[in-house]
Amino acid sequence: MNQKIYASIITIGDELLIGQVIDTNSSWIAQELNKIGVAVKQRVAVGDTRSDIIHALDEAKQQASIVLLTGGLGPTADDITKPLLCDYFKGKMVVHQPTLDHITHIFEQVLKRPMIERNAKQAEVPDTCTVLKNERGTAPGMLFEQDGVIFIAMPGVPHEMKWIMEHHVIPLIPKKFNTGYIQHRTLLTAGIGESFLAELIKDIEQQLPLHIKLAYLPNYGMVRLRLTAWSNDESLLEKDLDYYFSQFKTAVAPYLVTDIDQPMEVVVGNLLKEKNATLATAESCTGGYIAHLLSIHPGSSIFFKGAIVSYANIIKETILNVPHEALITVGAVSEETVLQMAKQVRELMQTDYGIAVSGIMGPGGATDEKLVGLVWVAVADKMKVQAKSFHFRFDRRRNIELTATNALNMLRGIIVENS
Amino acid sequence: MNQKIYASIITIGDELLIGQVIDTNSSWIAQELNKIGVAVKQRVAVGDTRSDIIHALDEAKQQASIVLLTGGLGPTADDITKPLLCDYFKGKMVVHQPTLDHITHIFEQVLKRPMIERNAKQAEVPDTCTVLKNERGTAPGMLFEQDGVIFIAMPGVPHEMKWIMEHHVIPLIPKKFNTGYIQHRTLLTAGIGESFLAELIKDIEQQLPLHIKLAYLPNYGMVRLRLTAWSNDESLLEKDLDYYFSQFKTAVAPYLVTDIDQPMEVVVGNLLKEKNATLATAESCTGGYIAHLLSIHPGSSIFFKGAIVSYANIIKETILNVPHEALITVGAVSEETVLQMAKQVRELMQTDYGIAVSGIMGPGGATDEKLVGLVWVAVADKMKVQAKSFHFRFDRRRNIELTATNALNMLRGIIVENS
Repeated sequence: MNQKIYASIITIGDELLIGQVIDTNSSWIAQELNKIGVAVKQRVAVGDTRSDIIHALDEAKQQASIVLLTGGLGPTADDITKPLLCDYFKGKMVVHQPTLDHITHIFEQVLKRPMIERNAKQAEVPDTCTVLKNERGTAPGMLFEQDGVIFIAMPGVPHEMKWIMEHHVIPLIPKKFNTGYIQHRTLLTAGIGESFLAELIKDIEQQLPLHIKLAYLPNYGMVRLRLTAWSNDESLLEKDLDYYFSQFKTAVAPYLVTDIDQPMEVVVGNLLKEKNATLATAESCTGGYIAHLLSIHPGSSIFFKGAIVSYANIIKETILNVPHEALITVGAVSEETVLQMAKQVRELMQTDYGIAVSGIMGPGGATDEKLVGLVWVAVADKMKVQAKSFHFRFDRRRNIELTATNALNMLRGIIVENS
Repeated sequence: MNQKIYASIITIGDELLIGQVIDTNSSWIAQELNKIGVAVKQRVAVGDTRSDIIHALDEAKQQASIVLLTGGLGPTADDITKPLLCDYFKGKMVVHQPTLDHITHIFEQVLKRPMIERNAKQAEVPDTCTVLKNERGTAPGMLFEQDGVIFIAMPGVPHEMKWIMEHHVIPLIPKKFNTGYIQHRTLLTAGIGESFLAELIKDIEQQLPLHIKLAYLPNYGMVRLRLTAWSNDESLLEKDLDYYFSQFKTAVAPYLVTDIDQPMEVVVGNLLKEKNATLATAESCTGGYIAHLLSIHPGSSIFFKGAIVSYANIIKETILNVPHEALITVGAVSEETVLQMAKQVRELMQTDYGIAVSGIMGPGGATDEKLVGLVWVAVADKMKVQAKSFHFRFDRRRNIELTATNALNMLRGIIVENS
């Protein structure tokens, strides 16, 4: 059995250490590496400080065969990574003509702006690296090798890094290393807490062989169970994983949302597509977030028709026909209001289903009877409309996310019931 | 002059290494530490593997006086952090009665479910730690001290971690360390690339004293310039920072969006509040994302009335009165369509301003004349409505974000013009 191949990810930039940006690059990289059987040993974020970057490189090459760096390759003076890599890999800086041509092309043909010296300088690379062309920008990727470890430096701009990963790094790795096979399977459950779920499946968990790991990933009132298997024998891996996966699936059946690793909105979108059904939303407290979740995925226009974000009460009245009386007596956050919103948006947009939400997301807006976190959700179909209340108790952002996920899950239940 | 105080952040969990979740905890922690004058030296993510966690602890204590750990403290069997910390800090596990009482209270009074052994086990802690109460959940925080370094372990659930940070960690640090003062100032610019901006301000940049650092943070077609100063002398720090900040501000004046560190939607929201003006959006390609951006911030109901997400063309016709003719001849992604959408949504919702967007976000939807990334944006006010086209060239998610930011920036320009 071969050794497992490990990678280490280093992200460079002061902005990562003061929290001004959230690092989405390294999770994306980890995901892509996992798909091709490479395990990530460690992810490190360091600032634009020479000694810290060198220390991170020294550390990474002890732990991993593949070291991926992102960030620190822009045209401005705060970037120190390229000269540092030049020293670290004992090279000298030379102009890389194809890169210079590419940069010149971008300025002349795409940006239609004069190029300045700073831009041309991006074509300089250490002569000890292999240049990886960056079709999406002016800073090229660079590949170095040392003592059997490969180091790849990429710019930090996500779509540039992704392009280099997809076109250079991912195709290269299986040629350089025997990576074995890795597979993940995921079960999404709703309506049961992490500890109770653990009780439910503990017997199966105890039987798991060493090459299969189970993880609990709780989020938004749901728990995702993830099985990860690694092996050099692909057919054995499939067989083992199939066996345990179906055991777990049976055990959690009453709580199962999906056995595919998909976000809730994709599960619901696929169900709607399968049933040839359409959806519209009427959103108060989520302010368009449910519509955004649905429409961020390509192909959503097949089932998603649109939304009325009735943030102000007057919009609930004028567009969604919620009676003025109701808004005054029972209020905007009430069963009566969401029932009418769901019914009306479905009729207005002529869809099969309508979702409506209204709630108090916080920090303000609570009354004596209605606390922060109270949310009413309604789902309308052609025959009926039903509502349900939820009591969340977290912060605004989280309440918005919880409302969206639970509203979509309520719709999911009703679509399944209707079939 | 005192030494600068450094912190190191360790996030624990296999899910971070397979990219299934994005780590938002460590950027939030970094932000909070920076506010109180603590600099983050390194952020590391490791898996649920004993040797890797120990290695990360060994490393962190060489680099920092404060080591913050998140993750790995849940009730299920994949969590190994607590016993590991018990060994690392040479303790033995004991039941912490106040934590047990708290957990019992949560199950009896809040969740109203029977407690199982797994839950009670969360009250066991190493006897070498100081327990930090977690009001938001069942896993307590733990504080250890070793050779002048403090280690604080917190659960990975964001709102639980944040509660412990705010109520225990942030108040504790200034009592234990002389942290000095740190300050950041930010300028947001639009309409100028990173390299040209660098040319514009290079003379000022070269004069910067050692204790002030400048960073370029490009994003969504804008560049954020951030000055960071650190000193033990608060008044000197203020004086120096004021001086250089105003120099930079003058130099970038034609491109300046704001001199406060705020996202675009907050800049626009504050402008609207200042002018006592209201806004509605009509969104096709952004699918409610602009409405979501505006409404995620508390207090947005003062200026934001609502949105029509007209994802399907029929909604553009029936609710936004876009002529059927126009949709057939010039199409949904056209100047004529967005002009009508903006005008109509403003009238429908009786607001001072209306934004409309329609575009091709990709990957599908392109035609011979209209490429992926083509977006039409319109802004209507009481007197007029004007439109502008954009050509983005990235992926769907990024195109949605670019559309939202640029539409809001267009509105900002018009509000400023109107004043």
